[in-house]
Amino acid sequence: MSTQHLDLETARTIVSGARASGREQGLKPLTVVVLDPGGHIVVAEREDGASIGRVDIARGKAHGALALGMGSRSIMNRAEQQAYFVAAAGAAIGGSLVPVPGGVLIRSGDGDLLGAVGITGDTSDNDETAAVAGIEGAGLVAQPD
Amino acid sequence: MSTQHLDLETARTIVSGARASGREQGLKPLTVVVLDPGGHIVVAEREDGASIGRVDIARGKAHGALALGMGSRSIMNRAEQQAYFVAAAGAAIGGSLVPVPGGVLIRSGDGDLLGAVGITGDTSDNDETAAVAGIEGAGLVAQPD
Amino acid sequence: MSTQHLDLETARTIVSGARASGREQGLKPLTVVVLDPGGHIVVAEREDGASIGRVDIARGKAHGALALGMGSRSIMNRAEQQAYFVAAAGAAIGGSLVPVPGGVLIRSGDGDLLGAVGITGDTSDNDETAAVAGIEGAGLVAQPD
Amino acid sequence: MSTQHLDLETARTIVSGARASGREQGLKPLTVVVLDPGGHIVVAEREDGASIGRVDIARGKAHGALALGMGSRSIMNRAEQQAYFVAAAGAAIGGSLVPVPGGVLIRSGDGDLLGAVGITGDTSDNDETAAVAGIEGAGLVAQPD
Repeated sequence: MSTQHLDLETARTIVSGARASGREQGLKPLTVVVLDPGGHIVVAEREDGASIGRVDIARGKAHGALALGMGSRSIMNRAEQQAYFVAAAGAAIGGSLVPVPGGVLIRSGDGDLLGAVGITGDTSDNDETAAVAGIEGAGLVAQPD
Repeated sequence: MSTQHLDLETARTIVSGARASGREQGLKPLTVVVLDPGGHIVVAEREDGASIGRVDIARGKAHGALALGMGSRSIMNRAEQQAYFVAAAGAAIGGSLVPVPGGVLIRSGDGDLLGAVGITGDTSDNDETAAVAGIEGAGLVAQPD
Repeated sequence: MSTQHLDLETARTIVSGARASGREQGLKPLTVVVLDPGGHIVVAEREDGASIGRVDIARGKAHGALALGMGSRSIMNRAEQQAYFVAAAGAAIGGSLVPVPGGVLIRSGDGDLLGAVGITGDTSDNDETAAVAGIEGAGLVAQPD
Repeated sequence: MSTQHLDLETARTIVSGARASGREQGLKPLTVVVLDPGGHIVVAEREDGASIGRVDIARGKAHGALALGMGSRSIMNRAEQQAYFVAAAGAAIGGSLVPVPGGVLIRSGDGDLLGAVGITGDTSDNDETAAVAGIEGAGLVAQPD
């Protein structure tokens, strides 16, 4: 069993670390969502100026990652090969699957799955960088692919 | 028209104030959502021990309040009189309408609508009390009905 | 075959007449939707101050009326007797059925069905009065039940 | 923050200006929707001869623009590069995203976001031209991409 749990304070630490990383890199306004292993929101924050669909996009990156058990970068790679599979998988799980980087699995040092972070707002690569920074800043392990 | 805007920091202040109020009152784990005037999430936090559907419930209290233009306590009162109307209104707006107290409109001192808070976790009355405490603690005006 | 058609200009006349009636009666901000016989929007107007869910509510009154072939006042009467039927009928047609007065069928002088008006914002009775005023002001026949 | 508000009369001015532009250019029947910043309809008009799905298409252009914070022309450009991303983003936000020109953000002279216009009926380029004409005719700033 998992001996470590992603509590709210840890999730908030991930969010604040990711947002700080974004500010340091001069990124556009970010929206950051942390999901538990069941795909349910623990924390969400949408920065000033981020557009209204961004929580759903961020959630879709993280939720897709949990749904398929891989970071959203790997789902993008699959989409480049078989777009119809990813489209169908997204529909099958209810629509919340956004197959570009920025959906990153959160693991403990022992490899236990603790949840996922989804970020949107800047380029997908930069979104992912901020997500990894947030996870590692909380002393956890990021799996972006 | 609106001369005041609900930025992320203010929304976070509302959430932390509502959660502090819950702790002081010894409430069960709370889930707190702050929506902008268009019904879109600005911040969401789900406390440890809160069940997986709680973000959707909290959002439904706040979203219903914005959709109908009244605090969710008033929607409950209408449901007590005409349950079929409230059920149908919820379906018509897409499902996110939870007609019990805890969905509170946020207004500026001038009466401008800035968004809504939704809280779930304890009794509906206590959820509402925490929402009002969070809004007032941020120097804004709470409309619970 | 219908020899009269509800064109956009007639639909706009209905909307402006309904809104003028609301102003004369001192009603709260109204949202007015005119649907064609197929249930599709021809015109919608949401007055300043009307809450964000009001187009869906107004559409639900008019769409429910067309779906069941009777004004929404009659659907309310059915809901008072058999709320579960109206709830199930609403779900069966996709959710857009709001069973309170304010959804009024539009007929030609010959009785042809031309569409429906849905209004929300004040009391359901007042919403219906404004809808009837708008339809009759355009020289057509209102069927509120 | 926002010092200007998109009231119903301004929205109606945008619609009438866009329709007049369409007539002057000899365009096919247009459907014009104006949304507030939260993505909710303020005005919709569907011209005689426009097909039954056109309000949903027009709304999808405008809603997608608001959801992602860019005119629908930019969303088309992204779709040309990564069709699977745009399809997935549309699904993640609930389906209302149509990635071709004709969804134009409305800004004040100070750059505040006031809403969006969506138009469909003629070619996408012509739809966009009519939307820009409507916005500029109301003294506001159009952002088509």
